[in-house]
Amino acid sequence: MATGTQRPSVPAAALLILPLLRAALGQQFVVTAQTPSDCGGGSYFDASSLSCVTCGANQVPRLACECQTGHRLLFNSGGGVTCQPCPASSPAVTRDGYGCIRCPGPAGEDGRCQCPAGHVLVERDDSGNVLEDAACQPCNGAWGGSLPVALTFRFLFSFRCVRCQDSFINSSLSCVCGGSSIQVQQHLTFHGIYQTPLSIAPYSHLPVQSVWFSNFLYSSAAACLVFSNRSACQALGNMCVMNMHSSSAVTNDACGFYNILYRITATLGFTQGISYWRANLPWLYYGEQPGLASQVLRTEPLPVGYSFKGAQKLQAAVYNAAGGFLRWENVTGGTLQLCQDTGGRKQAAFTFGTSYKQSCVLSVSDLLTLFPEPRFYDVFLALGTSSADRRLLALPVLNLNMQFNGQFINQGSSVNNWYLTRRLLLVDTLSGRDKSLNIPPKVIRVATAIKIGFQLMPNTQRGEVYPPLITMSYSDVPITNPLTQTVPVSFSVEYEMDQSEARVKTDIALGVLGGVAVLYSLLKTASWKRRISSPIIDLETVLKFLLFYAGDLANVFFAITVGTGVYWLIFYKAQQFVSVLLPLPQQEERFVTYVGCAFALKAVQFLHKLLQQVCVDIFFIDWERPRDKALRADVGGEAKSGAPPVSIWRTYFVANEWNEIQTLRKINPTFQIVAVLFLLEVVGFSNLGLRDPWSTLQRPPEAYTPPHSLVLRYGLASILWLCIGLLQVVFFTVFYERFVEDKIRQFVDLCSISNISVLLLSHRCFGYYIHGRSVHGHADTNMEEMNSNLKREADNLCGQRGLLPNSDTQTFQISITNRLRVQYDRILEPLTRRHGPSRLVDASANPFEQSTKAYHTMNRFLGSVIDHAHREMDYLVRDKLLFERLVGMEFVEPLDKSIFYNDESHSFSDVLFYGNEATLLIFDTLFFCVVDLGSQSFVLAAVLTYLQQLVFRLIRDAVGQRNLAAKTLVDKRFLI
Amino acid sequence: MATGTQRPSVPAAALLILPLLRAALGQQFVVTAQTPSDCGGGSYFDASSLSCVTCGANQVPRLACECQTGHRLLFNSGGGVTCQPCPASSPAVTRDGYGCIRCPGPAGEDGRCQCPAGHVLVERDDSGNVLEDAACQPCNGAWGGSLPVALTFRFLFSFRCVRCQDSFINSSLSCVCGGSSIQVQQHLTFHGIYQTPLSIAPYSHLPVQSVWFSNFLYSSAAACLVFSNRSACQALGNMCVMNMHSSSAVTNDACGFYNILYRITATLGFTQGISYWRANLPWLYYGEQPGLASQVLRTEPLPVGYSFKGAQKLQAAVYNAAGGFLRWENVTGGTLQLCQDTGGRKQAAFTFGTSYKQSCVLSVSDLLTLFPEPRFYDVFLALGTSSADRRLLALPVLNLNMQFNGQFINQGSSVNNWYLTRRLLLVDTLSGRDKSLNIPPKVIRVATAIKIGFQLMPNTQRGEVYPPLITMSYSDVPITNPLTQTVPVSFSVEYEMDQSEARVKTDIALGVLGGVAVLYSLLKTASWKRRISSPIIDLETVLKFLLFYAGDLANVFFAITVGTGVYWLIFYKAQQFVSVLLPLPQQEERFVTYVGCAFALKAVQFLHKLLQQVCVDIFFIDWERPRDKALRADVGGEAKSGAPPVSIWRTYFVANEWNEIQTLRKINPTFQIVAVLFLLEVVGFSNLGLRDPWSTLQRPPEAYTPPHSLVLRYGLASILWLCIGLLQVVFFTVFYERFVEDKIRQFVDLCSISNISVLLLSHRCFGYYIHGRSVHGHADTNMEEMNSNLKREADNLCGQRGLLPNSDTQTFQISITNRLRVQYDRILEPLTRRHGPSRLVDASANPFEQSTKAYHTMNRFLGSVIDHAHREMDYLVRDKLLFERLVGMEFVEPLDKSIFYNDESHSFSDVLFYGNEATLLIFDTLFFCVVDLGSQSFVLAAVLTYLQQLVFRLIRDAVGQRNLAAKTLVDKRFLI
Repeated sequence: MATGTQRPSVPAAALLILPLLRAALGQQFVVTAQTPSDCGGGSYFDASSLSCVTCGANQVPRLACECQTGHRLLFNSGGGVTCQPCPASSPAVTRDGYGCIRCPGPAGEDGRCQCPAGHVLVERDDSGNVLEDAACQPCNGAWGGSLPVALTFRFLFSFRCVRCQDSFINSSLSCVCGGSSIQVQQHLTFHGIYQTPLSIAPYSHLPVQSVWFSNFLYSSAAACLVFSNRSACQALGNMCVMNMHSSSAVTNDACGFYNILYRITATLGFTQGISYWRANLPWLYYGEQPGLASQVLRTEPLPVGYSFKGAQKLQAAVYNAAGGFLRWENVTGGTLQLCQDTGGRKQAAFTFGTSYKQSCVLSVSDLLTLFPEPRFYDVFLALGTSSADRRLLALPVLNLNMQFNGQFINQGSSVNNWYLTRRLLLVDTLSGRDKSLNIPPKVIRVATAIKIGFQLMPNTQRGEVYPPLITMSYSDVPITNPLTQTVPVSFSVEYEMDQSEARVKTDIALGVLGGVAVLYSLLKTASWKRRISSPIIDLETVLKFLLFYAGDLANVFFAITVGTGVYWLIFYKAQQFVSVLLPLPQQEERFVTYVGCAFALKAVQFLHKLLQQVCVDIFFIDWERPRDKALRADVGGEAKSGAPPVSIWRTYFVANEWNEIQTLRKINPTFQIVAVLFLLEVVGFSNLGLRDPWSTLQRPPEAYTPPHSLVLRYGLASILWLCIGLLQVVFFTVFYERFVEDKIRQFVDLCSISNISVLLLSHRCFGYYIHGRSVHGHADTNMEEMNSNLKREADNLCGQRGLLPNSDTQTFQISITNRLRVQYDRILEPLTRRHGPSRLVDASANPFEQSTKAYHTMNRFLGSVIDHAHREMDYLVRDKLLFERLVGMEFVEPLDKSIFYNDESHSFSDVLFYGNEATLLIFDTLFFCVVDLGSQSFVLAAVLTYLQQLVFRLIRDAVGQRNLAAKTLVDKRFLI
Repeated sequence: MATGTQRPSVPAAALLILPLLRAALGQQFVVTAQTPSDCGGGSYFDASSLSCVTCGANQVPRLACECQTGHRLLFNSGGGVTCQPCPASSPAVTRDGYGCIRCPGPAGEDGRCQCPAGHVLVERDDSGNVLEDAACQPCNGAWGGSLPVALTFRFLFSFRCVRCQDSFINSSLSCVCGGSSIQVQQHLTFHGIYQTPLSIAPYSHLPVQSVWFSNFLYSSAAACLVFSNRSACQALGNMCVMNMHSSSAVTNDACGFYNILYRITATLGFTQGISYWRANLPWLYYGEQPGLASQVLRTEPLPVGYSFKGAQKLQAAVYNAAGGFLRWENVTGGTLQLCQDTGGRKQAAFTFGTSYKQSCVLSVSDLLTLFPEPRFYDVFLALGTSSADRRLLALPVLNLNMQFNGQFINQGSSVNNWYLTRRLLLVDTLSGRDKSLNIPPKVIRVATAIKIGFQLMPNTQRGEVYPPLITMSYSDVPITNPLTQTVPVSFSVEYEMDQSEARVKTDIALGVLGGVAVLYSLLKTASWKRRISSPIIDLETVLKFLLFYAGDLANVFFAITVGTGVYWLIFYKAQQFVSVLLPLPQQEERFVTYVGCAFALKAVQFLHKLLQQVCVDIFFIDWERPRDKALRADVGGEAKSGAPPVSIWRTYFVANEWNEIQTLRKINPTFQIVAVLFLLEVVGFSNLGLRDPWSTLQRPPEAYTPPHSLVLRYGLASILWLCIGLLQVVFFTVFYERFVEDKIRQFVDLCSISNISVLLLSHRCFGYYIHGRSVHGHADTNMEEMNSNLKREADNLCGQRGLLPNSDTQTFQISITNRLRVQYDRILEPLTRRHGPSRLVDASANPFEQSTKAYHTMNRFLGSVIDHAHREMDYLVRDKLLFERLVGMEFVEPLDKSIFYNDESHSFSDVLFYGNEATLLIFDTLFFCVVDLGSQSFVLAAVLTYLQQLVFRLIRDAVGQRNLAAKTLVDKRFLI
């Protein structure tokens, strides 16, 4: 392959053009399969071309066409023989087949002369001329047998008595094949006298002298060259395969010989219309021109479209080391898979679309037992759909161990530099035998990693794939102790498609949505600036912008990842004809990074919201006035000490309820987890996350379980989580809250009944107001009155609960003026100062008194503000514009008057978990998915998500309770 | 085996006694393993005895001892040969080996005379006398070859020219073995002329005429009988095995011949000291005396103790059908297991203690490929621990297909009727060949179920087991279409111990505890009778007794099942030397029934308690009196209508809190589920439920997964559930309630602060009282006073909260008098009647007014009772006796005065979920376990348990809320 073995330039150029022509014509390396049983009388099965060849006149088909008995060989062109009948005077044929002769006795069945044991047949004189009459001459005892001594230039055999090699003398009188020889072909025995120099054995880096190579390399090459002996040619090719298709500048290695033969036999034409498959020779190499690999692999799709779950039918022609064709074998479970497993699991490798990976550690002693001799496979893909259509596509092999001049040339990632080959072997226990073929090998070569890779054509709708590539990686195992030595081996089938388009689309979506997110976050920041009534852009503003941006970007990432996951889930699992294939594990990294970003950013947003919620300002305005001091008089005044005090219990009740709804959610989060877990693990949705085309939920336990796809798992978990979440939201809002219990509405009602309003300030100058002034004037009363009040209201006998007369609107979003806020802060100042450095405070001041005083002041102040009693802090009530609602920002700044926006939708729940269900749900989803992606266990994800929810709920409850106690001055002991 | 094959009576008696003697001497069927390589020069490996036999003088070891070249055979006793050198005058040996003769030419290497092809050697005259000189005579062409014609009475060969059978004529000049013959032994060819009648082929029910049997049965029998030819004997034995060891009254079937030979060769003695193993014959049967099977299987344990996880090393001597010994084989993964699987999983079958079951469906075509000829196995168990100790124990085989006179005699369950055998085969594709051995079989016989059963010795501490039994079940598969035909096969290893002792112990425990449960339930019923103040034993009493008994019996069942489960879990999984083995799946049924009983009874108890709880009578006594009417005056009087009313909000608050703690539990039930699921599925405790001795939590996914044991799963789940439950209870009571929040104590405190007492009547005349009278006199006040009250109390500036002066005891169990209860009911009568037939009630009466009136009346009445204002309904306060606490019954009947028992332990929580944690926990445990036992899925169990808890909590909350509203007259809208 290159300098040492370059072919003559002109034919090479012609050969270079051929495959290009073929590709242009839409042809591929397709052959038609024939088996020995297909060949009728008069034709033979040519193992080198895998087809039937018909013999000419005077010929009989055996391993090749041979002359009939009584016919001599006129000439052997390498491509065929010509025969001529012998005359009646010399009816027998010489041993070499080229001459006619008369025998001393009767001729044998094969038409050759026979001599008794210990005698040698003399057919030619010393010059090599054929004698008229053959003669039998006895041999001396120690010099026995007839033996072809040399391949002379005239390609003749010379028969005479020669001394056998030492190793034969004791066995018999003739030099038949002994221990160190094999009969390579039926009519020809190659002996050790054509031994190969030991340096070119396949294990050049180990001190192993391959007896197989040294005995048979030269003989095979010679027999292939001289006699066009097909078995010898195959044997030579197999040695090249055992040598990992490697060649070097020295041409006398197996592949070097093969290449010489390849060049020499160019005139014989090629086989089955494939230019790389020279007649009589096995097909070992695709051409050597640069870029051929990518042409072979990426130019034309297979002529059949693949449907999912269909079987890919591989077939292999199997040869033994000596070059004999053994059989056609359907590549099923056990053929290429060295690991043991059940038949069904092994067979799963050949279902199109199933990512298959099997690996195990094999004992060397088992390998030696199972593979006493190597088998060589020419692998094809059956293209025919019917049994009559026997077209086969030759599959290229990428041998990672192939060397040229000592360099591993196939280990780079660039397709253009690859040299594709054809024949492969699994375990070579033969070439590592040192000194004798009968002793165990010193080293064995094992195919430790076999991968069949399918590449889908871009934009196909009909399941068109490029020719699959078999990648082989071999390891040499020097045998020291077979019982304890082990070899890890693996077999895998991968399906790949070009993901760059998907990646580009994802990037575009990310860019566009990211830009939108920036705008939206800017808007949010502006809204926030207005709500805190601060016009300066300072560091805090930037920080706030980043926090908002984190949340929005998290949503973008989440949308993109869920979209991608669901896309793969639907399009991959639902397709009949293959149009998309999953990204490979290494291609999923980018996706996992996106999910990680989404989770991290969402966590930032969640924590930010949590922090905001536990810092909210809240106050309960009690409208109740002492009774006996007259109902109308002196609303803003203080109750005299003698009068019965207004009971604080209503405030306690309301505060208690508020405390309880802090972590209320629109869904039942535990049910959410349980339902998702049920669907995934019990119903079996998790099986949809497997890298195979089956979309069944329940699988038999003995079936093959392919690896999980992270993308599919994520898509599955997130879509289930979101769907169940949405179902729950729908159930709770449409059914449960309407017909069973609506805690938020109950709270608003409770405010009304208990005559208490709630003022919530989520920002400095923005918040919510729940108008709870009782329509009955008094709520601090006994059971009769309470019951009659409730009854009167039910019978519509009293006014409406709204803040404005004759309105029902009790809940408002409020934008308050800076002035109001300053006053609010001033009232609370003594309390907040309490937490400050205590030395500045009057030590004698009782904190209880302070807080009670602040409470009363605040109660009076806020009550008067709501009652429009403060002219300079007045407010007006209006509806929010639709656009204001949409962008979540108030367009009018409350400079002079505060603004109360009607808010029927209870948006005060934004300071509770209840109003942030989307954020919580997405955060939970991402938490669940991230844990699952990390651990591949839905159960663990469910457990940790539960704990996460529990912890954050406890934190929110505890901190929220403390905040509530601090801001409303209600003792913490009543918030139970 | 029986009439047709009975042995002579006297030796039979002797043989009968022998095994008994052996058993008495503690011996077993132990042999010493030798391999062909163990036999040095001068000895040969005798495959029938599996040992080396040393040859005598003038002999050489080949397949048996034979005479050296130049020595003639004097006589062949069957046990050995005697040789004599030939004289120099006639140095060669006749073909039959018995005579010395002079050859016409040089003698061959084997010391016999040789003749050219087409000639026959004549050594004897027509009378059979040995000639002086042997002669070679030519044969006529069509009459060729030399052939032993018949076995004459004098056991001599007669050589002359005979006509070959038709099938031989075309092939060669001599009658060598053709297609339908095999060379049974190296020196002897049996031909088709000794054909067996076709009727006794092994497939008597199918129209298949076994060519193997018809060709070789008689020949093998004859060669075994006449020449003591060991291969022939083995071949005969193999035919008996292929015939399923079956025999009938007709003696000319394979086993019949074997039995005849067995009787005849009695004089030759037996092999390896085992009386059933006759010299030269294979060992096929254990004796035929009744009860031998149970003697062999149940008398003596193996001489080695088994540790868990140790390997049981099985070895097998392998023979081919022709009787040749192939090799010793270690029985590992693939030897007896027909199903394919990974090596590791297959090997798991031979780890002691691992219940192994493997089954699959094999394709018939695969079977035909994998088993071209049958292999016969003599299976042994290796007893030696070191490699030098090669003692082997012969394993008995129970062939379920064995017939005697057409009856299947091994399919009964009684061990005493079994006939044990020895040799087994897996797939027989040979005997079903019809007409020719070269065509595929018409029927194959497959070992479809192979079971190796180990039985543990009772009361062993050292892992002693009885000899394991191999049970074989075969199926005949007539071949119609091998490509589509399939056979289901299975291989299993079972470990069993006698469970009757455990069963007896369980029954005793059940009886004893069941009796105790009856007593305890009687006590409970008596206590209940006293508490409802009803002395009559009526149907309701019986029903109540049954309900109590259900609960107690459930506890008994639960204790026994958990105890059993945990016992197995600990003793099975933790043992080093085996002392217990798990009950088999069919033995677990009883256990599952117990669990089912426990669950059903517990469910009854749980529902009963639930019903009791939602029917409890409760009333909140408000001690608050209107303020301005002076603090001391007229406590029992009614507030004037003009005075400011006492606010009801404190009552609302207390009722609301009571409503909230209804389903409070001592544990977090969801966390309980999540934690159990985490431990089982993520940490991997569920792997402890597998039927193998490993106690590791994480297993590699490729390892063999044995079936689950229901007992272990139950033990595991229940103990984990209980442990986590207990841990949670400890955590909540010791840490959480002390340092974070104790809702029960908070409720009692709330009662005190809000000046409200709670009266609970769980039975008609029994209940609980929480004394909540404020120590400050008034609680219906504003924030200052509340805060100062709390502060005063914290500073110990006011009285103690107890009912009695200077006591702290606020909670009581109360036994009230019948009189008090009657009065109570009378006040509530208008309300209860409301729910009755409404026609009797004054239609004009406002239900609101009625209930308010009843509320005030009740409030006043109960307040005055507590204040000792009613002389006739007075009460006294005392401590409960220790014994009263223990049995849960009051000894003193409240005839005259009600009795208030001090109760520091808040036992009023008995009417809440909180006080019934044990029942709930056990119910949940059982629910979880029952679902798991039914579905074998912990995840499903967790999901359903969660739903169960959710549903019952919702029911309890909803119904409890309605009851609370009805009994306390607090509007339901305030119970939020």
